[in-house]
Amino acid sequence: MFKVNDNYLKLPGSYLFSTVARKQREYQAAHPDKKVIRLSIGDVTQPLAPAILDAMHAAVDEMGHAETFRGYAPDLGYEFLRNAIAENDYKARGCDISADEIFVSDGAKCDSSNIQEIFSLDNKIAVCDPVYPVYVDSNVMAGRTGVYDSTTETWSDVIYMPCTAENGFAPELPKQTPDIIYLCFPNNPTGATITKSRLQEWVDYANKVGAVIIYDAAYEAYISEPDVPHTIYECEGARTCAIELRSFSKNAGFTGVRLGFTVIPKELKSGDVSLHALWARRHGTKYNGAPYIIQRAGEAVYSEAGKEQLKKQVAYYMNNAHYISAELKKAGYSVSGGVNAPYIWLKAPNGMTSWEFFDYVLANANVVGTPGSGFGPSGETYFRLTAFGSYESTVEAVDRIKNMKI
Amino acid sequence: MFKVNDNYLKLPGSYLFSTVARKQREYQAAHPDKKVIRLSIGDVTQPLAPAILDAMHAAVDEMGHAETFRGYAPDLGYEFLRNAIAENDYKARGCDISADEIFVSDGAKCDSSNIQEIFSLDNKIAVCDPVYPVYVDSNVMAGRTGVYDSTTETWSDVIYMPCTAENGFAPELPKQTPDIIYLCFPNNPTGATITKSRLQEWVDYANKVGAVIIYDAAYEAYISEPDVPHTIYECEGARTCAIELRSFSKNAGFTGVRLGFTVIPKELKSGDVSLHALWARRHGTKYNGAPYIIQRAGEAVYSEAGKEQLKKQVAYYMNNAHYISAELKKAGYSVSGGVNAPYIWLKAPNGMTSWEFFDYVLANANVVGTPGSGFGPSGETYFRLTAFGSYESTVEAVDRIKNMKI
Repeated sequence: MFKVNDNYLKLPGSYLFSTVARKQREYQAAHPDKKVIRLSIGDVTQPLAPAILDAMHAAVDEMGHAETFRGYAPDLGYEFLRNAIAENDYKARGCDISADEIFVSDGAKCDSSNIQEIFSLDNKIAVCDPVYPVYVDSNVMAGRTGVYDSTTETWSDVIYMPCTAENGFAPELPKQTPDIIYLCFPNNPTGATITKSRLQEWVDYANKVGAVIIYDAAYEAYISEPDVPHTIYECEGARTCAIELRSFSKNAGFTGVRLGFTVIPKELKSGDVSLHALWARRHGTKYNGAPYIIQRAGEAVYSEAGKEQLKKQVAYYMNNAHYISAELKKAGYSVSGGVNAPYIWLKAPNGMTSWEFFDYVLANANVVGTPGSGFGPSGETYFRLTAFGSYESTVEAVDRIKNMKI
Repeated sequence: MFKVNDNYLKLPGSYLFSTVARKQREYQAAHPDKKVIRLSIGDVTQPLAPAILDAMHAAVDEMGHAETFRGYAPDLGYEFLRNAIAENDYKARGCDISADEIFVSDGAKCDSSNIQEIFSLDNKIAVCDPVYPVYVDSNVMAGRTGVYDSTTETWSDVIYMPCTAENGFAPELPKQTPDIIYLCFPNNPTGATITKSRLQEWVDYANKVGAVIIYDAAYEAYISEPDVPHTIYECEGARTCAIELRSFSKNAGFTGVRLGFTVIPKELKSGDVSLHALWARRHGTKYNGAPYIIQRAGEAVYSEAGKEQLKKQVAYYMNNAHYISAELKKAGYSVSGGVNAPYIWLKAPNGMTSWEFFDYVLANANVVGTPGSGFGPSGETYFRLTAFGSYESTVEAVDRIKNMKI
């Protein structure tokens, strides 16, 4: 008689963003006349850049002729894309990452949930609190997190690193030694960043204790300040301790296009076993590559025209971020994030919990945000807004929130 | 100190098709003047159908305007595609499968390797021998297969169901009771099919012993004979025991486009736990949907124009299959498959092993096939050729093989 993976049954409730979407649907169904504005999930709204559209049209045309038709992609991704990534994201920043250390995928969500597979089940993970839920949930599904305590909303075998107003939403080195450390900067959900010297401390720590850092840099395109590292490979020693996850979703608006990549340096080893080789084996066995058309779209991100156009797109969203941040501060809210990141991290007023404030904002401003507690216990009483709406809807949402009676 | 998932280290050698590709590269490098023809991996060569190209161009255009831009897709896939699948692949065949039992994905390779995740690690799998390597390898990586015996090339905790000339390459019900049964018809690699009454026996058996059947129907578009089921849901009782995997790779030439789907009926349960709910949770947590553009391409597969064009494409490949089969039979080879499937299963002559014949054909005919032993011990002495080449290269490859001195 077949049995299910009962780790799945330990997961409390449904995936955060599914719950948020359900609440929105239910509210909208009950109030069909209300125009609900969604600043919750980090989903972009602006059209793809012309250079990307051109590249995709050209690739579609190629698929229409036997001479230029492309079937299965190479396991790691097409060289034209891996070369463009290595050149622009790494070599141009002085980081020694070669094209064959880059694994092209269909996005950072898949990679960040799949990467745990190449590690032992008795490895202990450390995560920021609050945190992007996928890191923890994928480890729960694998059976790596122990027992769930519904009172504290924590797992017995996970090391939580609180990111609070007190520490500027940047974690301190954990007291208990982890095997796998998830870091995400610029941070989702808090919008916080880390300086290069602080990140260097993490790299040194990981090398010292033999931990691996899974560094999620999905939001690096939003960095504008000089001392904020764009990649963990700016730090010395990162090649022996760090895997980096990257996405095209936010820098190029690819949430519905699906493209990302993972970097695993060849020196990153456990004994003589290379993590690069294990991930290559996983890619070869359990994945079949991102679509050719989409990989050509990715290449266009690095073209001169693409870079120029995307700089403007990022600026468009960051203008929203600055607007939300400035206006809500004026209205008396306690606000962080929104400087090098498209997320604004808001303290719920009057001692409301995150979900109470979520419901209150949905009912009174018809705006959907994301409850901070959904990202972890230290997110309680916080609320995340994203800068990915249109300018017009962002301004309207902020005005409505400002006009709510609190 | 982090440790790796040592199940990965148990995997013998590299993924079959990677090894085949490496051998081809090495031969080509050593013999740059030779024109090597590849009839190995099941990769298509014909351009996408015009209806599909039109749909993709239109979808790319939509992504260029804020009003029609699409971000993250719904967890299960877009309704327009799931409705088209339910209508055309199931309702039109009298099968009761609804759109919300369909999970759109980026292909059957990913689904067939990921599906084991929702089952308990102590479940025992049964596979055909020979078999598509991904079913077994993904279970090895999860730690479900016991110890590898390099002499027999089998795993201690896997039930192998030999498919040989004696049983017409169709497995018999296993003596030991499995929890999870992988079946693939039309079969990869043998090209064999199963009748509806034989498949009904499997469904009855699975329901009786409480096993789940993972039914890979990636090649159903190649069925031409009347008594061959296109989907397992043609059998009574399949809704309580069967998951079906489907692909657009072979029926629509999407190997480089990446689209597939998995069907999990809502009645399929272990106790009161629904596999549909578990897979939905996996999709929501570890996947982010197939690209919008690609889902529109999938929809076009079911348009009137698309169906007409793809019927011709399938006929083109089946013409190759018939040619390979007929000519190699004439030349004295023992050949099966190639009737309702794009694979020809060839017995190596003169007692050669599969890899000996592979090397011999590569060296003497400059044709790349796939060694049958790579699919499992009962594949030893067999050799797989695919019908996915162009007609011209297929004819040339067959002529070269016929002209080899044996």
